[in-house]
Amino acid sequence: MRELTRMTWHEVRAAGRGGAVAVLPIGSQEQHGAHLPMGTDTMLVSAVVDGALARLGDDPLLVRLPALPFGHSPHHLFAAAVSLTAHTLQAVLADVLDSLVQSGFRRVLIVNGHGGNDEIMRLAVKQYALRADVALAACSYWSLGEFQNVGHAGEFETSLMLATHPELVGEPGPRPEVAGLFAQRPYPGLTVERHGEWARAGGSTGGATEATAEKGAAALEARASALAAAIVAFDEATRESHGSAPIQAV
Amino acid sequence: MRELTRMTWHEVRAAGRGGAVAVLPIGSQEQHGAHLPMGTDTMLVSAVVDGALARLGDDPLLVRLPALPFGHSPHHLFAAAVSLTAHTLQAVLADVLDSLVQSGFRRVLIVNGHGGNDEIMRLAVKQYALRADVALAACSYWSLGEFQNVGHAGEFETSLMLATHPELVGEPGPRPEVAGLFAQRPYPGLTVERHGEWARAGGSTGGATEATAEKGAAALEARASALAAAIVAFDEATRESHGSAPIQAV
Amino acid sequence: MRELTRMTWHEVRAAGRGGAVAVLPIGSQEQHGAHLPMGTDTMLVSAVVDGALARLGDDPLLVRLPALPFGHSPHHLFAAAVSLTAHTLQAVLADVLDSLVQSGFRRVLIVNGHGGNDEIMRLAVKQYALRADVALAACSYWSLGEFQNVGHAGEFETSLMLATHPELVGEPGPRPEVAGLFAQRPYPGLTVERHGEWARAGGSTGGATEATAEKGAAALEARASALAAAIVAFDEATRESHGSAPIQAV
Amino acid sequence: MRELTRMTWHEVRAAGRGGAVAVLPIGSQEQHGAHLPMGTDTMLVSAVVDGALARLGDDPLLVRLPALPFGHSPHHLFAAAVSLTAHTLQAVLADVLDSLVQSGFRRVLIVNGHGGNDEIMRLAVKQYALRADVALAACSYWSLGEFQNVGHAGEFETSLMLATHPELVGEPGPRPEVAGLFAQRPYPGLTVERHGEWARAGGSTGGATEATAEKGAAALEARASALAAAIVAFDEATRESHGSAPIQAV
Amino acid sequence: MRELTRMTWHEVRAAGRGGAVAVLPIGSQEQHGAHLPMGTDTMLVSAVVDGALARLGDDPLLVRLPALPFGHSPHHLFAAAVSLTAHTLQAVLADVLDSLVQSGFRRVLIVNGHGGNDEIMRLAVKQYALRADVALAACSYWSLGEFQNVGHAGEFETSLMLATHPELVGEPGPRPEVAGLFAQRPYPGLTVERHGEWARAGGSTGGATEATAEKGAAALEARASALAAAIVAFDEATRESHGSAPIQAV
Amino acid sequence: MRELTRMTWHEVRAAGRGGAVAVLPIGSQEQHGAHLPMGTDTMLVSAVVDGALARLGDDPLLVRLPALPFGHSPHHLFAAAVSLTAHTLQAVLADVLDSLVQSGFRRVLIVNGHGGNDEIMRLAVKQYALRADVALAACSYWSLGEFQNVGHAGEFETSLMLATHPELVGEPGPRPEVAGLFAQRPYPGLTVERHGEWARAGGSTGGATEATAEKGAAALEARASALAAAIVAFDEATRESHGSAPIQAV
Repeated sequence: MRELTRMTWHEVRAAGRGGAVAVLPIGSQEQHGAHLPMGTDTMLVSAVVDGALARLGDDPLLVRLPALPFGHSPHHLFAAAVSLTAHTLQAVLADVLDSLVQSGFRRVLIVNGHGGNDEIMRLAVKQYALRADVALAACSYWSLGEFQNVGHAGEFETSLMLATHPELVGEPGPRPEVAGLFAQRPYPGLTVERHGEWARAGGSTGGATEATAEKGAAALEARASALAAAIVAFDEATRESHGSAPIQAV
Repeated sequence: MRELTRMTWHEVRAAGRGGAVAVLPIGSQEQHGAHLPMGTDTMLVSAVVDGALARLGDDPLLVRLPALPFGHSPHHLFAAAVSLTAHTLQAVLADVLDSLVQSGFRRVLIVNGHGGNDEIMRLAVKQYALRADVALAACSYWSLGEFQNVGHAGEFETSLMLATHPELVGEPGPRPEVAGLFAQRPYPGLTVERHGEWARAGGSTGGATEATAEKGAAALEARASALAAAIVAFDEATRESHGSAPIQAV
Repeated sequence: MRELTRMTWHEVRAAGRGGAVAVLPIGSQEQHGAHLPMGTDTMLVSAVVDGALARLGDDPLLVRLPALPFGHSPHHLFAAAVSLTAHTLQAVLADVLDSLVQSGFRRVLIVNGHGGNDEIMRLAVKQYALRADVALAACSYWSLGEFQNVGHAGEFETSLMLATHPELVGEPGPRPEVAGLFAQRPYPGLTVERHGEWARAGGSTGGATEATAEKGAAALEARASALAAAIVAFDEATRESHGSAPIQAV
Repeated sequence: MRELTRMTWHEVRAAGRGGAVAVLPIGSQEQHGAHLPMGTDTMLVSAVVDGALARLGDDPLLVRLPALPFGHSPHHLFAAAVSLTAHTLQAVLADVLDSLVQSGFRRVLIVNGHGGNDEIMRLAVKQYALRADVALAACSYWSLGEFQNVGHAGEFETSLMLATHPELVGEPGPRPEVAGLFAQRPYPGLTVERHGEWARAGGSTGGATEATAEKGAAALEARASALAAAIVAFDEATRESHGSAPIQAV
Repeated sequence: MRELTRMTWHEVRAAGRGGAVAVLPIGSQEQHGAHLPMGTDTMLVSAVVDGALARLGDDPLLVRLPALPFGHSPHHLFAAAVSLTAHTLQAVLADVLDSLVQSGFRRVLIVNGHGGNDEIMRLAVKQYALRADVALAACSYWSLGEFQNVGHAGEFETSLMLATHPELVGEPGPRPEVAGLFAQRPYPGLTVERHGEWARAGGSTGGATEATAEKGAAALEARASALAAAIVAFDEATRESHGSAPIQAV
Repeated sequence: MRELTRMTWHEVRAAGRGGAVAVLPIGSQEQHGAHLPMGTDTMLVSAVVDGALARLGDDPLLVRLPALPFGHSPHHLFAAAVSLTAHTLQAVLADVLDSLVQSGFRRVLIVNGHGGNDEIMRLAVKQYALRADVALAACSYWSLGEFQNVGHAGEFETSLMLATHPELVGEPGPRPEVAGLFAQRPYPGLTVERHGEWARAGGSTGGATEATAEKGAAALEARASALAAAIVAFDEATRESHGSAPIQAV
């Protein structure tokens, strides 16, 4: 693993042409209840990416870009979010992909830390893969492998923050009475969106009083391992045309 | 159920203000192998929507819009698709939602028949629900309830077409040797897109030689029932503020 | 004549490359007074197109696309229209033309059923003809040949609907006192638009009490014949570079 | 008549609020054969507007804006045109209309000198009239009243230039053999556009050898009178809500 | 110097291919206090450009375009400006540059008369120079060479108008008490913008009571000479690849 | 000073409503010769911002946003830059400003580390200040106060990197023979852009062999002090309407 921001352009070009996978974390700045900081998603996706890359021995075929600290959070603008519109985030991702391909990369992976970015990110890789001879991948760190979405500002994220940035975690309030659609999704597979739901629900989808650093460390370990495995699988599925050595767990 | 295209504007306005749910089917015009027609997705989503609405007794609280016959199929442009760009489809859906809300509707459901429309549709309802005091829903007909995605131009779609439009179904070719990413997804939860994959795979994700009208009728029945159930659930979750009578299966 | 939606992609491709003319009807969903349905424009343009194609013996050089059921009707949003913005309709038409040309077509005809689409449609064919080696045509069904614009939701459209969809025609109200600009255009050749004029005029440009199915049948016959003649003329003017047999009335 | 460019902002504001009509000429910079200058359309529309305003006694209720010297001429880019895209011209017209309305005007007239601007201009006034409580008008100077389109760089425009800017008129070449669609329109009411037609036709739609200054003076007189009459009619149809004195010919 | 608007397209094409520099003046229509007209910026940039070109002997390698009479003046919309949005002005400049390059020009100079256009103009030349093999230049007439920005509607502009269009200059009011940010810029190099500042400052940045035609003539002479020198320098720096004779002062 | 990314949303909201200044650093990822890393601009603007904020005692009225790590570097795409288009960067800045204002901030300062962002940033604050009742400021860190632009990847930036990130600085090559426009600007105040100039110049505007950590430390000290002074001046000029205590150097 190498950080693009610390490499010279000759090193970046050589990596891209040599078959490296560029890895772009994307996060958000948005409310995470009264006890977690605005940058929670950006911090957590960074922690999972760094954990995964460490498991892969910081393979030189992996070039990590700086995390995009802003995401698409219009549903949190009622609570001080710094949000990009869907159109803007689409443009940012398209520009970054286009730059990387002009630079010589043929493989890019976007790793997402914020639910609101998910469709936009997947759409971005679908769009761009039609424009150039590349292989692109995208995932949200919490839903790789067997894992499922685990809520916003609740036990899952609080535990991860306790494991990674305990100094930034306040005392979680009592378990909220989560209103309406967040309490029970009307039907599996059906997306339902109701105006004002996040404000009505107080900005979180569940309580965090049972969060612990131990749970967080285990969750982080599990996600980092899954991401490492996903990277290996992506490399394996797309490597042959590049002739590079396989990326492997150490 | 009533069709907006056959109603006067006074009837449409009264329905919207009375708490009706507007239902918009969206499809595509794209290749479905050598044995299925271009309009397969549009025909099938229409069949599922009509089946669901029939199960609900053609409740007057349901207003069906004409299906959008074109979708986002850039990956099928190599094979004569008539495709809208992602940006255009976003604009169409935003305009239709905006019109319906100006018209008086506060509840809209989009039902999708084509994989390429999925993220765009879900993004559209998320976006619009932030702009106005509405409750919006979206689903792809094949993945409601316990069902999963079932491929393109293979046994599933061919069976459905045999059940609904047998005169338009040709002799399916031998089971294709599906190449690369379609044969095995690299990792659960990881979206991977590779340039040219659809052309290399010959445009389908699996064989259709075992398709039958019976299988299709069963699949149609199952999906229409699931959609009817999803509509009831959506109505139930969002009805109270409208004071309308519940939508129910007959 | 063949319907694209019912053809396989191999058939579509062969038709396009063989010199076929793709025919795209475009309509609207908008108020047509208290006695005609929202889809009037879409139904009528479809009837005229089908009539014209029948007169041409359903020539295999004619490929009919599904009608676009939504048009540009911002002036009817006060009355429950489902409208695309000008920008969106421009994008839809550009995308459809671009798809058809990528598919192999070199000749496309757009036939319009709604006044608000007229400039946008003509602009679309002008724009696209500059981008690719194609011959494109566009017309509004009511103004071909010697015919002139004949109002909105008045005697002309009501008669046509009586001839084609009598079950959808209600009792027209008394002849409206049409106000302001609709009663008398200020000057020939001068477009004048005044805010709120459609609402003030009650949504129609004239009375319909003298509409009859007979008048409608005659008008439909005349328009379908004119469109058939226009198609023959378009074919004749643009055929030579394709080497296809002439399209002829039967 | 007063020129906005020579007025102070207090005078402009007072005029707008007092019910004045803002008049915006729009032209082009594009080829007009080997004998006429690039700015022909801009010069001629300016001459017609000035002639019309003189006939109206330079009524203070008429505020003339500077002519937009660039238009939409993509079909002349093969021959050194300076052209705005359709999208850009739409934006320019929307911005100018929006500024004038913010400034206090409630009536605006656009007068066009170039065929390629026609649909865009009419669309612009239709769009903007929906946004604000205004009355907007638009015309192309050559097609007001009983007049019809009279070709490009042929006898009509050459005569007008001989009457207004004789020093800029060269010797017209022999009558061109106009090819294809320009020689005979395939069908009345049918717009047909074929790629490359302007280049094939040598950039003009007819010969100019019989042009004379006398014909030009007569044509100018006729168009200026028609425009003056159209302005009077527009004023009459839209004046009452402003309470201003009628605009009249002197 | 030649004016594009008065040239035939053959002359324009020959000039562009022969290495000529196209010169585009851009201005505005906006308030200039109670004593100067709306078109002040357009008139002054035109005067400076004409003065510079005269000093260069009206070299045939210089082709002057008609001035764009509208600019980006959103901060003056409170006072009857006719303004293009930043996006629209970007589009206009991009279109003009693109047209000129398609026409054969490889060198273009934009000369600006209005502060609000400055960043947009410089951005436009930077953007376009990346797209095609051209050399582009841009300047604001008042800040060439050693000169600095000299305020809005104050002594500088009033003197220039007295020298060039005395009949359009009214009696300047008493020196305004300029408020807030205009009285003293907070820090060198720091752009500070506060909502409503132009309205609070009464639309001008300083008094004009000491303006004279003599000062204006001297300022005009100085700016025209500086622009002529800048053109010679631009020609010298970019000429070699064109093989044209040097542009020189006469 | 506080970091938004580490604050809860309640703290962010309280700061904004209490009159705090939000500070957004923006950088780039682009070539900086063979001896400096891609993220040089982002690292240096961060160092200057942190230095300035430290001089201000980390005043709680200053809320630092995470740096935007990507900028507008199309002129460096030939050398592996990761660049946003001008349109995208405009959108990002507009979205961030809009979010901050929705959040409660009325004062924002953007500090820039990359030349290519300069016009876009200044334009962004001008645009947004027209939309809401705010006071916005923008500067590029190298050109505050008496300082001037000091080149790309030359002695200035290399010295700063030696002072702040010595482990990332390679051996600078010999002083390049800087070609063309970079060696001598044609005329003061004239922006000149020539296609391909950055590639011809080898990507740098001057040699770095005389760079030292001492020079860098002095330059950093000077810029951080200037930025601190600019912040104090901005606060002073815009504070009164907020009633907050003055920001002061410690």
